[in-house]
Amino acid sequence: MYFISETSANGVIERSFTLPSPTASGEVPGVLWSPASDAAGRAPLVLMAHGGGNHKKHPAMSGRAQRLVAGAGFHVAVIDAPGHGERPRTAHDEAEVAELFRARAAGEPEGPVVVRYNEHLARLAVPEYRALLDALQELPEIGADGPVGFWGINMGTAIGVPFVADEPRITAAVFGQHWPDVLAERAKRITVPIEYDMQWDDEHISREEGLALFDAFASTEKSLHVNSGRHKELPRFEADSAVRFFARHLTGVVAPSA
Amino acid sequence: MYFISETSANGVIERSFTLPSPTASGEVPGVLWSPASDAAGRAPLVLMAHGGGNHKKHPAMSGRAQRLVAGAGFHVAVIDAPGHGERPRTAHDEAEVAELFRARAAGEPEGPVVVRYNEHLARLAVPEYRALLDALQELPEIGADGPVGFWGINMGTAIGVPFVADEPRITAAVFGQHWPDVLAERAKRITVPIEYDMQWDDEHISREEGLALFDAFASTEKSLHVNSGRHKELPRFEADSAVRFFARHLTGVVAPSA
Repeated sequence: MYFISETSANGVIERSFTLPSPTASGEVPGVLWSPASDAAGRAPLVLMAHGGGNHKKHPAMSGRAQRLVAGAGFHVAVIDAPGHGERPRTAHDEAEVAELFRARAAGEPEGPVVVRYNEHLARLAVPEYRALLDALQELPEIGADGPVGFWGINMGTAIGVPFVADEPRITAAVFGQHWPDVLAERAKRITVPIEYDMQWDDEHISREEGLALFDAFASTEKSLHVNSGRHKELPRFEADSAVRFFARHLTGVVAPSA
Repeated sequence: MYFISETSANGVIERSFTLPSPTASGEVPGVLWSPASDAAGRAPLVLMAHGGGNHKKHPAMSGRAQRLVAGAGFHVAVIDAPGHGERPRTAHDEAEVAELFRARAAGEPEGPVVVRYNEHLARLAVPEYRALLDALQELPEIGADGPVGFWGINMGTAIGVPFVADEPRITAAVFGQHWPDVLAERAKRITVPIEYDMQWDDEHISREEGLALFDAFASTEKSLHVNSGRHKELPRFEADSAVRFFARHLTGVVAPSA
């Protein structure tokens, strides 16, 4: 893990880094956000994964990081998914993205394409997240024995569910807005507390599909937040709810409201 | 409305009152909780309704009031339901309660008895809530044009859904944990923002029944909070969520966390 730049604003230090990929060619670019005041010593870590077509510094990512770091004093890290952000697209990426655009233009369901492509990306990304966590835990301000959360919606859930299913270092996770195909079997192995977001009027993921994935988690402590509205209308207050969820489970203390 | 006592603790003034019932014989006892510091002038009002077998000062009621008054600066009022708390039980109340205990002891579903008895109680209680709101809006610290919310779970939802369906002064409501029979038709006339709680492992109300009632609300802005656990295990953090919901919708400002 090599840090390549550092900036600071609004009480948050932002460090860009690269990490060798264990699965794809080249380096994985990432960003680590940390509290500017490190007086408190070690702090919990939340790993995030961005949505499909987005990237590590998309406003949804930096907005969540601002809440987690400035609001709860956590460290937050996210990396570009394969074929996303600063990373090159393979011919396979190009073909799948073209197929998605074709299905969308033809008014066909996006689900089959997205589920298949996300599964491919998750196979590459899961070992990258494991390597990311290994590297971050070597930093003195994070350490090897602190609590670690995972937060990913949409494609972030497609990566996060198989990652968390096999990663005992993750002790709480926020997921949401994905089809149960492929993921439900892995969700049955997840037992840590989870919060799951779904949209009641999602034009891509049916209510039955959303509820089926939530139901699959083996966690004794799990919460489902359903909101009226379409796929892209997930209310912003769910980000505040997720921050409170992590504050409850990673520190045992309620975070100040944003 | 006659105030009969006043105490003050932890920043909250508690006033007990009675109100003539428009539907049942005798007076309806109630309690009004208000911020001890009235420097801010008028404040929003939340009407609450308690659960079956409970009463106006049950810890669930006083706990929610403490959060709403001390946390958000609201006024909060609740009255004993017919046959509950300080109110006399009629022969009909006694018979229905006996039938509920009989069904429970026999391992039969409670739903049919509870749905029927709650509908009877709601017919009496809805005009009482209307009279309560009329009386409270005459108080200078509440006034006739301020925002008003409603919060009732279980039997509180059985009373609240028909009340809110015909009461344009209610502008936001928190409901939960009830069967859709009787209520779903009324819920279709409710358009204000709602938050709805259900338990994923409720031994009395099936998932399909809970989801059906949530689905029935005509509100364009509605949120469903599902938590793992049985009927009586609704997590306490849902009370904090409800307070934030009212703070968002009755004041447009996020409440401080409890």
